[in-house]
Amino acid sequence: MQTLQEKAAEWSGVDTSDALAIDETNLYEKLGLQTFINLSTNFYTRVFDDEEEWFRSIFASSTKEDAIRNQYEFFVQRMGGPSLFSQRKGHPALIGRHRPFPVTHKAAERWLHHMQQALDATADIDDDSKTKMMNFFRHTAFFLVAGDELKNQGQASTCKNCKHH
Amino acid sequence: MQTLQEKAAEWSGVDTSDALAIDETNLYEKLGLQTFINLSTNFYTRVFDDEEEWFRSIFASSTKEDAIRNQYEFFVQRMGGPSLFSQRKGHPALIGRHRPFPVTHKAAERWLHHMQQALDATADIDDDSKTKMMNFFRHTAFFLVAGDELKNQGQASTCKNCKHH
Repeated sequence: MQTLQEKAAEWSGVDTSDALAIDETNLYEKLGLQTFINLSTNFYTRVFDDEEEWFRSIFASSTKEDAIRNQYEFFVQRMGGPSLFSQRKGHPALIGRHRPFPVTHKAAERWLHHMQQALDATADIDDDSKTKMMNFFRHTAFFLVAGDELKNQGQASTCKNCKHH
Repeated sequence: MQTLQEKAAEWSGVDTSDALAIDETNLYEKLGLQTFINLSTNFYTRVFDDEEEWFRSIFASSTKEDAIRNQYEFFVQRMGGPSLFSQRKGHPALIGRHRPFPVTHKAAERWLHHMQQALDATADIDDDSKTKMMNFFRHTAFFLVAGDELKNQGQASTCKNCKHH
């Protein structure tokens, strides 16, 4: 059976070692808090204005402000900065916290499309950091697609509300 | 609606700030890799020999060696050491990776009982580190109980194999 990590590498086309290159440099120290806030603001401005309703609606249960904060606090923490996310919300628990959302291959690609645009629109992110971040994001997006598929496995075997299975 | 973090604090009786006291000291630098290996070995030796079959059986899908390695690599990474776990397996994804297991209140208490015994049986862990680690473990155990309950919520609303709900 393929592990989450193996699925992430295969589906994203990004080797695990390339995804983990974000740990070679402290990107938080290099880019600073404001750059992360700007990136997430640019990202969610695109997402909340997306013409594709199927994608926009995935985020409808959250305010734009909360979405921005959750995202940049996690990025800051994961990329060498203070544990802003965990101090406020606990373990990142990426798969668990994405559980309510349909994290499909198509949704991952659309997320990554907006993130690439947001990276390009954010001042002060050098090309090397951009490449490292996109590799990390791409690998992680498909890690979450792999995590999402656990839901379907769980459903068939553990549904206790139904006599059919 | 209570967050995962709020449920963890309430059910564990450990404030979030006390759980995060593990970040005040670099416990990996203080205790060293071998102590973490010894702790996880002591822990899983107890678990795999547990007289309570309902608890022992939760771990039956894994070898003892794998269980030990997964645990100490995560502890080392979370407590200030190198990212051994993520380099091998990706994001910790604590809730997602515990998905196959019934993480009940009762199971959390039994896990913590064995962990307290394992901490007491492991040489070279000073009392302050022990307290910090137990607070972190207790809070995290109930964070995972809260995460486990998401499964039941998901089932009722998303089961697509059944016409009844």
